[in-house]
Amino acid sequence: MSETAGRSAVGIGRRRWAVAEGYIPQWSHGPEPAMASHESVSLLNAGSADAHVAITLYFSDREPVGPYRVTVPARRTRHVRFNELRDPEPVPQGTEYSSVIESDVPIVVQHTRLDSRQAENALMTTVAFPAD
Amino acid sequence: MSETAGRSAVGIGRRRWAVAEGYIPQWSHGPEPAMASHESVSLLNAGSADAHVAITLYFSDREPVGPYRVTVPARRTRHVRFNELRDPEPVPQGTEYSSVIESDVPIVVQHTRLDSRQAENALMTTVAFPAD
Amino acid sequence: MSETAGRSAVGIGRRRWAVAEGYIPQWSHGPEPAMASHESVSLLNAGSADAHVAITLYFSDREPVGPYRVTVPARRTRHVRFNELRDPEPVPQGTEYSSVIESDVPIVVQHTRLDSRQAENALMTTVAFPAD
Amino acid sequence: MSETAGRSAVGIGRRRWAVAEGYIPQWSHGPEPAMASHESVSLLNAGSADAHVAITLYFSDREPVGPYRVTVPARRTRHVRFNELRDPEPVPQGTEYSSVIESDVPIVVQHTRLDSRQAENALMTTVAFPAD
Repeated sequence: MSETAGRSAVGIGRRRWAVAEGYIPQWSHGPEPAMASHESVSLLNAGSADAHVAITLYFSDREPVGPYRVTVPARRTRHVRFNELRDPEPVPQGTEYSSVIESDVPIVVQHTRLDSRQAENALMTTVAFPAD
Repeated sequence: MSETAGRSAVGIGRRRWAVAEGYIPQWSHGPEPAMASHESVSLLNAGSADAHVAITLYFSDREPVGPYRVTVPARRTRHVRFNELRDPEPVPQGTEYSSVIESDVPIVVQHTRLDSRQAENALMTTVAFPAD
Repeated sequence: MSETAGRSAVGIGRRRWAVAEGYIPQWSHGPEPAMASHESVSLLNAGSADAHVAITLYFSDREPVGPYRVTVPARRTRHVRFNELRDPEPVPQGTEYSSVIESDVPIVVQHTRLDSRQAENALMTTVAFPAD
Repeated sequence: MSETAGRSAVGIGRRRWAVAEGYIPQWSHGPEPAMASHESVSLLNAGSADAHVAITLYFSDREPVGPYRVTVPARRTRHVRFNELRDPEPVPQGTEYSSVIESDVPIVVQHTRLDSRQAENALMTTVAFPAD
């Protein structure tokens, strides 16, 4: 049992994760930005070193795109919305994709979608697949 | 950390996966096809060889049906809707089933259902169970 | 790759699973029985021997209840609704519980809840925790 | 197969778990408390010794907070709502966070969110990531 918050939580997780499901809905209902349709990966870095993360996107009809680079500081979490990624290119809406998330230190990755295309929102989540 | 998108992502996943939950709702609300009730498996092939996938369906009251054959090219993703499978036979609606997904190379499998039977849609997802 | 449907799928899964989340909503909207609020475990037995399954329920304020006994025949799936369990006693509504699912042969277990307490339904699912 | 309910279920699970996704919605619709927006972790202690659990929260812009201490008695489950945690400090609403759950005996952890910000509720769940 940890005596100091976060002390014993060094190095939790894996260095490579995959999310097979990906789809950014093309429209939304409700107040922005909280209720905007979006898809995200939550990245927890419970360790004592910054995590340098590279996200690669896979599509059904063209070569993978990436890496999208994200830094998660030590002892921090970062919830990355795919629809806010810009470099090397925005993620298209209404298109099926998958993602691979690679980090230089262990992190924990969880995938979530908020779909507000109809008047009420829908939610889904899963821990990503730990690939190493 | 990968220097080339997708380069380091060879061979992610497993060769056999199972999804115990399966049920295609019998009706839908909202614009087709995006909001049609459906159940899908998203198949990510991050490797450098095409994946030849066989899906077998299990039912509560008869022998398994399959294989349904799907190819996922190298470095591509494919989101397969169960309600679009036709060979050897369509998947019945309103019927409980399970599925086993087998591939000749490692893939990652995620299961998703969009249920639009009532006026607003509901979503659920989970990474499939890696069985080997 | 299987040449015969289900042939290669012998013995998929584990013999002990746990579902920490459990709660049967106390009311429903929509046509019965499809839209009745319910919580279920889907049990896939892809093997060639019948699975004899025992479900034990854990509560917050009393001793565990069970086993509830269920048989899943060889090469069959069975979606068990907790609110239909009767022996040794019905599962109370509006009460938090957890479940442990034990089988004499490997099975795959997935947990799902349909909540129709409000006018539209909500869905959630996850593969159970493989405990052995 | 267990002959006595709970007998064979000693020591199920792990001692360290992580949930990367965390967010308490800022408002709710529907009757309280059942339909209040909330996020919870369900903790199953199927073993014969009490579980002393410490929850540490991670944020995007400040040091981790915790431990929040929770006891789950032997052979009991406890569904902990993050929005009811008070010591060392309440969990802020509308803020992204992650959590690490540590126990002195094996437990099983599942993460669930009920979002009732719009007129109808949405649900999502996943087994947490087993980190040891």
